[in-house]
Formats: sequence, C-alpha cells, structure tokens
Amino acid sequence: MTQIQKFERLFNPRSIAIVGASDVPGKVGNMIARNLLEYDYQGRVFFVNSVREKILEQPCYATLSDLPEDVDCAIVAVPAQFVFDVIAAGKEKCKNFVIISAGFGESGIEGHNREMQLMQLAKENDLIIMGPNCLGFVVPQININASFAPGMPYVGSIAFISQSGALAVAAMDKAREDHIGFSAVVSIGNEMLVTAADLVRYFVDDENTKTIALYMEGVVHGEDFLDAVRYARQKGKSVLVLKAGQTERAQQAIALHTGSLAGSDEIFDAALLKAGGIRMQSMEDVFVAMVYASHYAFGKGGIKSIGVVTNAGGPGVLVTDTIATLQHVNMSVLSKKTKTDLKKILPEAASVHNPIDLLGDADAARYGSGIQAAIRDKKVDIILILLTPQAQTPVMEIAQQIVALCQNIDKPVITSFVGGERVSEAISYLRSSGIVHYMSSQDALRTVDVLMRMQMMYVYPKMRKKTQERTNRMKKIVEQVVDRDVLYYEECVAVAQSYDISISSYHDITRGLSAQQKIVYPCVAKIDDPKILHKTDRGGVILPIRNLAELHRAQAHLLSAFRSRSARVIVQPLVPIKMELIIGMKRDPVFGVAVIVGLGGIYTEMFRMTELFIAPLTIAEIKNTLLSGKLQFLFTKVRGISPYHIDAVARCILQVSLIGVENSFVQAIDINPFLVYNDDRKDIAIDFKMIIKK
Amino acid sequence: MTQIQKFERLFNPRSIAIVGASDVPGKVGNMIARNLLEYDYQGRVFFVNSVREKILEQPCYATLSDLPEDVDCAIVAVPAQFVFDVIAAGKEKCKNFVIISAGFGESGIEGHNREMQLMQLAKENDLIIMGPNCLGFVVPQININASFAPGMPYVGSIAFISQSGALAVAAMDKAREDHIGFSAVVSIGNEMLVTAADLVRYFVDDENTKTIALYMEGVVHGEDFLDAVRYARQKGKSVLVLKAGQTERAQQAIALHTGSLAGSDEIFDAALLKAGGIRMQSMEDVFVAMVYASHYAFGKGGIKSIGVVTNAGGPGVLVTDTIATLQHVNMSVLSKKTKTDLKKILPEAASVHNPIDLLGDADAARYGSGIQAAIRDKKVDIILILLTPQAQTPVMEIAQQIVALCQNIDKPVITSFVGGERVSEAISYLRSSGIVHYMSSQDALRTVDVLMRMQMMYVYPKMRKKTQERTNRMKKIVEQVVDRDVLYYEECVAVAQSYDISISSYHDITRGLSAQQKIVYPCVAKIDDPKILHKTDRGGVILPIRNLAELHRAQAHLLSAFRSRSARVIVQPLVPIKMELIIGMKRDPVFGVAVIVGLGGIYTEMFRMTELFIAPLTIAEIKNTLLSGKLQFLFTKVRGISPYHIDAVARCILQVSLIGVENSFVQAIDINPFLVYNDDRKDIAIDFKMIIKK
Repeated sequence: MTQIQKFERLFNPRSIAIVGASDVPGKVGNMIARNLLEYDYQGRVFFVNSVREKILEQPCYATLSDLPEDVDCAIVAVPAQFVFDVIAAGKEKCKNFVIISAGFGESGIEGHNREMQLMQLAKENDLIIMGPNCLGFVVPQININASFAPGMPYVGSIAFISQSGALAVAAMDKAREDHIGFSAVVSIGNEMLVTAADLVRYFVDDENTKTIALYMEGVVHGEDFLDAVRYARQKGKSVLVLKAGQTERAQQAIALHTGSLAGSDEIFDAALLKAGGIRMQSMEDVFVAMVYASHYAFGKGGIKSIGVVTNAGGPGVLVTDTIATLQHVNMSVLSKKTKTDLKKILPEAASVHNPIDLLGDADAARYGSGIQAAIRDKKVDIILILLTPQAQTPVMEIAQQIVALCQNIDKPVITSFVGGERVSEAISYLRSSGIVHYMSSQDALRTVDVLMRMQMMYVYPKMRKKTQERTNRMKKIVEQVVDRDVLYYEECVAVAQSYDISISSYHDITRGLSAQQKIVYPCVAKIDDPKILHKTDRGGVILPIRNLAELHRAQAHLLSAFRSRSARVIVQPLVPIKMELIIGMKRDPVFGVAVIVGLGGIYTEMFRMTELFIAPLTIAEIKNTLLSGKLQFLFTKVRGISPYHIDAVARCILQVSLIGVENSFVQAIDINPFLVYNDDRKDIAIDFKMIIKK
Repeated sequence: MTQIQKFERLFNPRSIAIVGASDVPGKVGNMIARNLLEYDYQGRVFFVNSVREKILEQPCYATLSDLPEDVDCAIVAVPAQFVFDVIAAGKEKCKNFVIISAGFGESGIEGHNREMQLMQLAKENDLIIMGPNCLGFVVPQININASFAPGMPYVGSIAFISQSGALAVAAMDKAREDHIGFSAVVSIGNEMLVTAADLVRYFVDDENTKTIALYMEGVVHGEDFLDAVRYARQKGKSVLVLKAGQTERAQQAIALHTGSLAGSDEIFDAALLKAGGIRMQSMEDVFVAMVYASHYAFGKGGIKSIGVVTNAGGPGVLVTDTIATLQHVNMSVLSKKTKTDLKKILPEAASVHNPIDLLGDADAARYGSGIQAAIRDKKVDIILILLTPQAQTPVMEIAQQIVALCQNIDKPVITSFVGGERVSEAISYLRSSGIVHYMSSQDALRTVDVLMRMQMMYVYPKMRKKTQERTNRMKKIVEQVVDRDVLYYEECVAVAQSYDISISSYHDITRGLSAQQKIVYPCVAKIDDPKILHKTDRGGVILPIRNLAELHRAQAHLLSAFRSRSARVIVQPLVPIKMELIIGMKRDPVFGVAVIVGLGGIYTEMFRMTELFIAPLTIAEIKNTLLSGKLQFLFTKVRGISPYHIDAVARCILQVSLIGVENSFVQAIDINPFLVYNDDRKDIAIDFKMIIKK
C-alpha cells in the first residue's frame, strides 16, 4: 500500500476506533467519542477503554486487539506513558493512528525518548502515525469529526493544516461565519512521522481539494516541504502559508554581514516564493484568501483590473486610494461603450467612470444596471460592489439583485456592505448564497493583491555536476586552513579565481615591500586577519596612499595598531567607486545555499535594498529577479543614467551560489564591496571573506 | 452671540423646525420628521410645509414666519430653487439653519450662483448655515436625530464629522455593533459657511467630546483647519483624520523635482502631523481608533509595553510577530516577581514569559490569575487578552472574569476572542460591558501603534519679520526676469547669497573665455537655460574637463547641441561628491511653504527617502525631524562612519523656507545636488533652480 493509499484510508475510514474513549464530560476521550457519534458519520465506530464495558451506551473493548474486525484508523487519547503499549498491542488490527496525547517530543527528555521509541515501532511495522500532541482531523464531506474540536465545518475545497490545534479550532469556528467550506481540517501536532509536507502532497492529489492553507510555527523538513509546495504548483493547486516567527528577522548578531541581512525567516520567504507558495501575514489575511479561494481560482497571476460599483462616493474614493498602492491590481478604465450605456440608464449626477457611482438613492434596479455594465465590460476582471445603507437604500433587495446577477458569472465578484445592523442580514444572505463578502474592502483588496502576484514560474535547474577540477582546487586551498574558520584574502583570491569571479589584485607587505612588488599609486593598505571581520569599522583600512613614504607609514601603523600574530598587511590598487554592492552567501540549515545581493556602503543596513536567491539558480532566474525586484532601478535606464552591468552581477551571484553548492564546507561568503559600473570599466570584487567549517 | 454660542444653540436646540416636512414615506422631509419624533427628543418640533395642514398628525405651518415662536434651529429640505426664499422669509424666526437640499455648489453654474446668493444672505443677517447638500446632525445625549440617517447611536465622547453623508450613515450603523458612542455625528456637506474647522473648534470646547474623528475628501481652508487641529491639541483632545485622495500622491508631472516628491497629499500629511492631528489610513483604522478612544485616552505618546495573556501559543506568536514590526508598541519584559507568582499558580507547561500562555484547558480562574499578574506588573502598560474557543474553554465565564477584573482599572485592556459562533455571544457581552474587543488583534495593534506615536510637540515659531534688506535684493533680482518664470544660475547665485546659502561659483563662457576668468581644472561645463529644467537628462552637462582644449570643445558642443537663443554655457569647479542631497521648496496653495529634503542622485526617486517640512520652521524642529526620520542614518554615527553635517543641512532647509516665506512670488526651488560631507569639507549647493510667478 502506498503512503497515499494509507492516507486515503486514514482520512476516509470505513471504520474507526477511539482508544481512551470516555463517558466523563470534559475529558478529551469523551469529546472525540461524542463528535464521532454526533455528525452522522456512516462508518463503524468502536470504543476502546480497558476499565469500562459501555461508553455512551455503546459496547466498549478493552484493547484494540479485542476488536471484532480490523479498523482503518485509531484515535489514541490515553496518557503518554500508555501510548506505546496501545499501539504495540493494536498494530495487527490497525495501521493508521492519530495520537492526541501530549507528553512527547514537546516536553523534555522523557517525552523525547517516548517519541523515539514510538517512531521505531512505527517504522518496524510500517504504521502511519499522525501527531502526537494533536487535535485530530475533520472531513466534512463524510461527516467525520475525529477530533476534540467542537462543530462541523461546511463542505468545501480548502484543506486546512495547522501545527496549532487551538488555531484550527478558532478557524473552524470563524469559517462558519464566513461560509468557508473545507475538504479537511487537520492538526498535525509534533509531526513525528506525518509531516506538513506529506499532507500537502496528499491533498494535492485529493480531488476535493483546490487550495491548501497551512499554519506553521516551524518548518521541520524544509527541503521536503518545498518539494511538496512545488508539487502543488505543478498540479495547479495553491498553497497559502501563515508562518509564525517573523520576529527572528534580522535579530541575530552574525559574524558576516549577509547573516544579518538574510535571517532565516527571509530565507523561508524566498524559498517559498521560489517553490510557488504564497506567504500570508496574518490570520485575517488567511481568511480573506480562503473566502476568495472558496469561490474563485487564483494564482494564474498577472495584473487584474477592478471595476467598482457603489452608492456612495466616499467609500469609492477610499478604495481607489487603496488600489493605487497595490502592485497587481488596478482600476479598470471602462470602455466607451460601457460609459455610453451607463449614461443612458443612470441619473445625470451619477458617475459613469470607475468607480461607477449610482448615487445615494440607488435602488436594486440601478445596482443591476451598474453591475451588468461591469460584467459586460471586457476591461473589468474583478467586480467590487460597495454599499452604504442610506435611508432610501433597499439593502436586502440589492443583495438579492447581486445574487441573481452574479452567482454564475465567470468574473470574480467581491461585495462589501459597510455598516452594522442594517446590513447584517443581507451579508448573511450574500454569503449563504455563495457571494464573496468582506467587511473591509480595503483589507480584502490588499490580500487579493498578494494572491494575484505573478507567481514566478521558475524552472528548477538540475544541480550541475561538480566541476572536479575546481572542487579539488578548493579542497587544496582549505587544507592549509588550520585552527581557524576564516580565510585570508590570499586564499579568498584563489577561491574567487577558481570560480571565475573577478577580484582585486593585492600585495602582501606584512614584512615590508620587496623589489618585485610593483605598487601602483594611489593604493589602499588593509589589515588582513581571520580574527578581524569588520576591518573598516575598526580602522583597519588606510586610504588613499599616494607614495612610498605614505605606504611605509601605513604599514607600520597597521602592524602596531593590530598587535595580532595572525595579522597580515595587504595593499590593493585604489579603484574608483561608482556603485557598491554586497554579494553574500549563507548556508541555511533548512533551505540550503542562499545568496543575497544588496546595495553596499552605508546603504546596506539602512535601506535593506536586497534580493535573496535560493540555489539552485540559473542566470535567467537571477536576471528576472533583479529586473523585477527592489534593485531594478540599477539595471534599467533611469533619467538618462545608463543601466549598471546586470550580466556581471548575475554571473557573480551564480558563481557564489556554486561555491556554496559544490563545497559543503563553505558556510558563508561576503563580497563587500563588489564594484559595479555602467560604463566600460570592469566590475570587480574588492573584498572577499569566507567562513568554512571543516 | 458668539459663534460658539450659536453652535451651542444649533446642536442643543430647545426647539426645531423642519421646512419641507412630509407625510410621504421615503421622502427626505418625511424621514427627518419621523427621526425627530421617534427618539424622545424633549424640545418642541414644528413642521413647515406650504401645502399641508397636518403632518404625522401634528399641525403644520405654511412658512417659518408663521411659527408661533422663534426656533433655535431649522432643517431645510425643500428643492434647491426654494431654499433662498425659505431662509429669507424665516430669518426673523430662526438664525441657525441646516440645509439638506442638494443642487448648490456641487452641481454646476446655476447651483454655484444659488450658493453665492445664499452666502450673501447669511452674511447680511448673521446666520449660521450648515450644508447645503448634507445629511443633518445627530446628538445622542439629547436624543435628537435631525437628519435623514436612520437610527440613534449610543451616547459617547466622540464627535464624528463627515464630508460624506453616506459614510456618516454607515459609521453610525457599524458603531452600534462595536459599542462606540458619539457626542455628535455631523454631516457638513458643501461647507459653504460652516467648515470642518469651525466644527472642530466647537467640539474641542464641548465638554462631552473627548475625541474628534473626521472624514474629508478635500480640505477647503487648509490653514484654518490646521489652526483648529492645533487648538484641539492645546486642549488635550485628539483629532483623527481620514482623508481620501491619497491617489494624488506623486502623480503630477511637475516641472521641478520637488514637485513630484511632495504631492499635495504628502504636504497635508506633514502639515497635519505638525499641527498634532493623527492621519488614519482606512475606515477600519478609524473604527479601531474610535473603539479605543471610547475607553482610553491616547496621544500622550511614548512607547507602550504590551502584556499578552492567551490560551493558545499560535495567536500569541502571531501577535508577537506583529508587535516586533511596530514602532511605538513593544512586548513587556515581565518582572521577576510576576514570573515567580505565575509559576506558583499556573500548570508546569504554561509559559510565564510574555505572552503568558495559560494553555488550552485554561478556565476562568486561570485567566483571572494571568490577568491579575499583568495588572500588577508595572512593566505592562496595556494588557492584550487573547482567547481561542477550544473544546474545554468556558468562553462566557472567561468573558465575565475579564469584565469583573478589568472594568475599572487604569491600564488599557484589549481583548480578542478568535472564532465565530462560539465566541460571538461573549464578544457582545464584553462590548456591552465596556471592554474593548477587536476581531483582529494584529490590525488593532497596528492602529494602536499609530495612536501612540509620539506626537511631536512643535513650538510654532512666530513668523520673523522680513529682513528688508534681503527682500529688497530679491526684488531687484526678479525685476530683471522678463518673459520667463525660471531664473538663470547667475540670478540663483545672487538669491542664494542673499540668504547665506553656500553655493558653487561659476564662470559664464557663453561667448568664450575672457582673460579674467581663472578656470581651475578639472571642471564641469553646463548648459544654463530657463527652458531646460533637466539638463543632466538631456546631455547638458559635460565632465570632467581637464584642460583648455577640452573646455573649448565642450563649449562648442553645448552651444551647437542646444540651439536656443536663451542658452548660456557656464563652468563650475568639479567638486568631489561624498553625499548628494536634494533640497527643494514648493508653495502649496493650501498649506503654504513646504520644504523637502531627500537623498540625491539616482536615489531620489527610487527610495523616496525624504522628509517634508512645513513653514514656519526653527532649526530645532528641523534637526529633531532629521534625527528621528528616514534620513537619520546620515546624521548619526553608523558602523564607524562619521555623521554628516546636520547643522549645515538644517540651516539650508531653514533658509530655503525663508526664501519662500519672505518672497511670495517664489513658487518653487530645487537645490540639486546639495553636497554634504562628514569631514572638514564645506557643504555646498552645486545647482540651484528657482521658479517665480510675478
């Protein structure tokens, strides 16, 4: 049986057992038992409890092995210390378990050991185990609530997967209000065996699921998770991810610059985007997206034009303001025909531009005219209908008009009735009739903008074969590095040259100048010491040096200022700066090699004008990102200024990523500055730092 | 009678007349009449209608002059063409009018003329007129609804003033749901006579009003409006402004650079902030703020620390993420005592750090312990209580516990129960018991952050006396400017020198070099022509020029490339650039002289790293803004880089503002670049453009 087939069994069981079922109200085993009986689940339900004969007036079995037949799924809600025995005893009767019990990996050494033993048991017997420390699952389509969450959501096309049981409960409750339906709600707990990635893959293949929404607090197997997101993307299903832990952003004090620019959360963002997933910023955004996803497809990307129909100018203007700040959504320019048509129908004072202002006394018929015009106009991709409940406004009749006109058209329709009591009944009616309604049209538009974002269709390049020659050279360079993690500039130059990265020449004058060293003035003298990562900040760079006398003074000064046995003094030509970039690489424990490029100099940390790339990369992908991202102004002609060399920058980014990909001992790289030009000068790395871990 | 006393009469009338009262359901005159009768208003109500004897079973008068007594207020709802006569005939019986009727300034020439006549009538007879084209007003405290908006809001301390009647209606309706109470809701319509500013001043003096919220689409008398906001600030009342029209931002193609950087909406923002008002971004933000303002004072500013109490980890982490992105709100670090106390009371697995995680099975008592700890802890300024309705959660009991503990403490308490049906009753209970509840704690925190923003207490400097000498010099410079609006560099140098702005020297070589002109190489040659505002973009700048031969070539090239009779060629020394700023001035028709400073060069439009200043200014205010704003990185020591000269920049900004303030014919100035240094070099203007209007 494949894993998919096992999950099929788990989420669509013909029979189910609850181990730890209970008669005592408030106990988890009682809540699950009652949930299973309450919602008209058609499969067989068995209660297991070693000390009771009947539970909820049904017969009760002492152990799983006593059951009269094999079951497709067992929910285990007994204290942690008994879980192993329950499963060991039941493994012949059942292969799919959901462990509700807490007291495992999340709670200290003892729990961790329990989890290890359980894992072993599962692997030896080819079991599926969800949890431990989870809430269970709900599949509305078959009326099964195998969890201790109260209620039964509407049937729908969204699979909601949550690391937090509490959020799953709250989401289920709130979703009823918004008329959001689910194909499944699953709480995954500790992800001991079944991970978020496994479930994403399963629901991608589930024909009842169109959209997968996840709440995650941490990413356990990053690469695998992204693989699953990529799979969803291939199959045309959208994955919405709300991930807590943004606070990690840039709070670490990491040795190299790149570290602080690319926190693990930023790397997750970049990796998710590359895989084709959509990052959500708050629970509210997830709900906005789920409401939209319940009715309409998204993710094809491109800019959408919105036509607004309103009975009040104010809210129309506010929406126009909001749309002006968005990237992937704009205001439709209505066609001439639409305007002419509207002029014939609407009162003279009405606006036939976008927003179409029907005026305060608009009735259902007038709304109908406005909406139909928007439906017909090819320049309108999405229709937004606003209503304020003015004294003359027949709110419910207008809602009915909307339902009549919009239920089965192929343009998305969003409604927003602004108010309280006077609109609440109509809102319920709209929602229950399958019309998207948002309390806040402005917030809704912001989220729709995120959904419409052109999801970049990266072609995932295959990892290239390592170039044996250069990795051998790398090995040799690193062999010399003893008792330290940071390379000397001399070694970095060798690394850069192995990877065809143009880098500034140098002379080592630690022990004075030799006759062969032909210094060109003006030049710069620098301290070069594995112990000193920020030499500029510490006064370890002297420039400009115009002649031999100044050079001697600089050398003497540096050696006496940095009394370190490992310190070297190097001299480099002074190159005129036109634009400084920083290009760095960081090995992320979860997502692998990340390369960052940003503005250098004093702008680096101030502006955080950076782009983050996740390996493997291609030149095409890098250029595409550079030309559409924050740094695009560098690479396009602006106000008569020639574009900077994008090819050189892209190539450097690619080569830096390859150093990381091909040499697993490389932990981090900082090229700072990488000088780039928009004339015939050659782009070049001026400083290069590398940290390794043997 | 002062204007305040008249408003007092208007909004607190002992008697009121409705001209155009009607029996016909759906007519405005009927809706107002019924609203006045329905809500237990204690004053006398008179109906005026020339063709009816009784309306709603009350006697009816033909005209205002037929009334048996004077009335404090008359609501006029007759067709526009009759309004003048109604008021002319009634002006002895009544001095305060509210004109509901549309068909005035908002609708063409005829309407405009009507408004002019009405204005004349009002001035001659010392009348107060609100509207025309408005909804009326509501004062819940005295049960008066003198509008055609349905319903009666709760009594409260917020005065809501709206240019849009529809938004006022929607707000009144929604406010009931959120338990927001109003001291008044006023729709101001065309602001023919009574302006938003008048009403702000009135409500500042109204003891029932603590907060004033405005929705505006345009600002009619900008200076006066800001005066009113300043007055509110002095009296310790907060003014929240939702202004539509952000779309104007930077969409104009204006001659000078500064124009596009400082759109009229940005200038409004800066001016409002300076006056002490708070700009809101959406109707939702206004509601969040009004809910908060209904219960707690804000606006004292400073950073507030938030203590979070929750029964679920997930929402706690999401809130922590949000708070990390805020500026004026942070997470409390709980005191040791609090943690020790909590450890004693809470289960072992609970978190005694912030967020205080009470765990999923938390009951009312456990919530009580957590909340009391937060109340006692001095490091907690604001308490945020989160709840997810888990199976074991006694939602209503917890709500009752919150009400019992939090109703009368002096720390603000914000609650957020996440869910739908399972929390809705408890939310209603919390709100009706005077507890602040938000559906979205993340959105709420973002708005609270805005409210807590340290409102800059600018001391408004008095306008200095004009320095006769320099304004005379300015006049002389401008006298020569004939048939053009743009000054030559020569004239700009004279202007800059008059105002002690350090500016680059130049030689005019239009007709070749003379012997007296001592050119220092390298230098730069530029075209100087009032017709060419963006000379760099058009190839009008040649550099570097290293010798006489190159200079001759440059001069010839420029003259032949720009075949303009008005063109001059000037030469300036080539000054090394360390940091380029742009400093500009723009005369705003509403808010007067605005000065902008931003990063220059290619960064100007890319980053929009700018600060906007509204005259009158002081050096202290300028420096304060520079050191706390987007450009602060320039003026503080960062990573070993010395700060740039803030005094020179501040002085230049001040002097540029004075050029504008003292010389009303100056329309705009662009200093681009203004070179600023962080060493012993002197900061200097390299190019200077000025546009005048004689």
